[in-house]
Amino acid sequence: MRIAVLGTGMVGRAIAGRTAELGHEVTIGTRNVATLRDRDGDWAAWAAQHPGVGLATFADATADADLVVNATSGTASLAALTAAGEKHLAGKVLLDIANPLGVDRGFPFPVLSSDEESLAEQIQRAFPEARVVKSLNTLTADLMIHPQQLAGGAHSVFVSGDDAEAKQVVTELLVSFGHTDVIDLGDISTARGTELLLSIWLRLYGRLGTPLFNFKVVR
Amino acid sequence: MRIAVLGTGMVGRAIAGRTAELGHEVTIGTRNVATLRDRDGDWAAWAAQHPGVGLATFADATADADLVVNATSGTASLAALTAAGEKHLAGKVLLDIANPLGVDRGFPFPVLSSDEESLAEQIQRAFPEARVVKSLNTLTADLMIHPQQLAGGAHSVFVSGDDAEAKQVVTELLVSFGHTDVIDLGDISTARGTELLLSIWLRLYGRLGTPLFNFKVVR
Repeated sequence: MRIAVLGTGMVGRAIAGRTAELGHEVTIGTRNVATLRDRDGDWAAWAAQHPGVGLATFADATADADLVVNATSGTASLAALTAAGEKHLAGKVLLDIANPLGVDRGFPFPVLSSDEESLAEQIQRAFPEARVVKSLNTLTADLMIHPQQLAGGAHSVFVSGDDAEAKQVVTELLVSFGHTDVIDLGDISTARGTELLLSIWLRLYGRLGTPLFNFKVVR
Repeated sequence: MRIAVLGTGMVGRAIAGRTAELGHEVTIGTRNVATLRDRDGDWAAWAAQHPGVGLATFADATADADLVVNATSGTASLAALTAAGEKHLAGKVLLDIANPLGVDRGFPFPVLSSDEESLAEQIQRAFPEARVVKSLNTLTADLMIHPQQLAGGAHSVFVSGDDAEAKQVVTELLVSFGHTDVIDLGDISTARGTELLLSIWLRLYGRLGTPLFNFKVVR
């Protein structure tokens, strides 16, 4: 597949690197290519290690993609997707991994009331022709792409979305990463459940002292 | 221990029956004893099967207890605990199992914004001398008391609270039920994490078609 990964942070790099390694044609989308390239530091090093991954603006990366991955910061996602362009998103599978987090008394928390729209629903409403699937937002980047490193992969991930075929595309991608238990929660509103899961995830992270854990739904 | 279980619903009955079976001296607290006894239906049958479990008002049940269990409906808990009496709660371990749920478009959801106080924090603030521990609110009643029936008990429960000794008392009770992985999340504010977990729990319940599942924190 041609995959556009929007976002140059830890999650974007993880998904871009892994999908390129699996043989997909991958372009990372960013707000301003020149700004990113001019930055000192780790971007240049990462890019040098991943010569097969392209870099383009949000719009150019998205234009030719089959699958678009939203790996931007949750509070910046709607702006990034607007820059990517409604017409470029129309008809495409949009895998939304972003978590909108705020900081309360120094502690991050999901910016969402449990009876309010999740970010995924906001994205689906803003881009009605995109086929939004929420997934992978409940575990750390390295476990998203290499789940087998933890308990041989015996833990769970979730998909939420209104489009069954789009969920199937995402599920197959997750299985290709090594996931063995992909639970289809239902329509896009079920993303409230996974976005609010961040509340306990963040506390477990603090308590366990490592992000290398995940939930398994034992049934 | 002398245990007061506030609430006559599924959770209250489960905890009362199990703790009595384990040799504790158990009294169920309710708003109005006569009203409950006069009700037709399943209370009388349950009481007949559990002759060792006492029944008293919230206040009378709580007065002599070592441990108080809040198994009332989450939206009614503060009123029930007020009826139990601040002076009767002072100094006691208060195990809070309640979840405040609302209904949105026909679907239940936790009545809590992720940056707002959890019910457990509201209870701790209303009754500062009680030693509140939030626990067991993340799984169905029958799994609270018989965890070994699912995957031999290989799944997780959480405790949140400001009082380490109170958390130890609750942890020992959970272990006596058969729990093998009790995770201390930290202070009482971490109950936000477990109360918001209901958002995905409720959707998984709908999806799996059974409440007999639980989360395992794989690490």
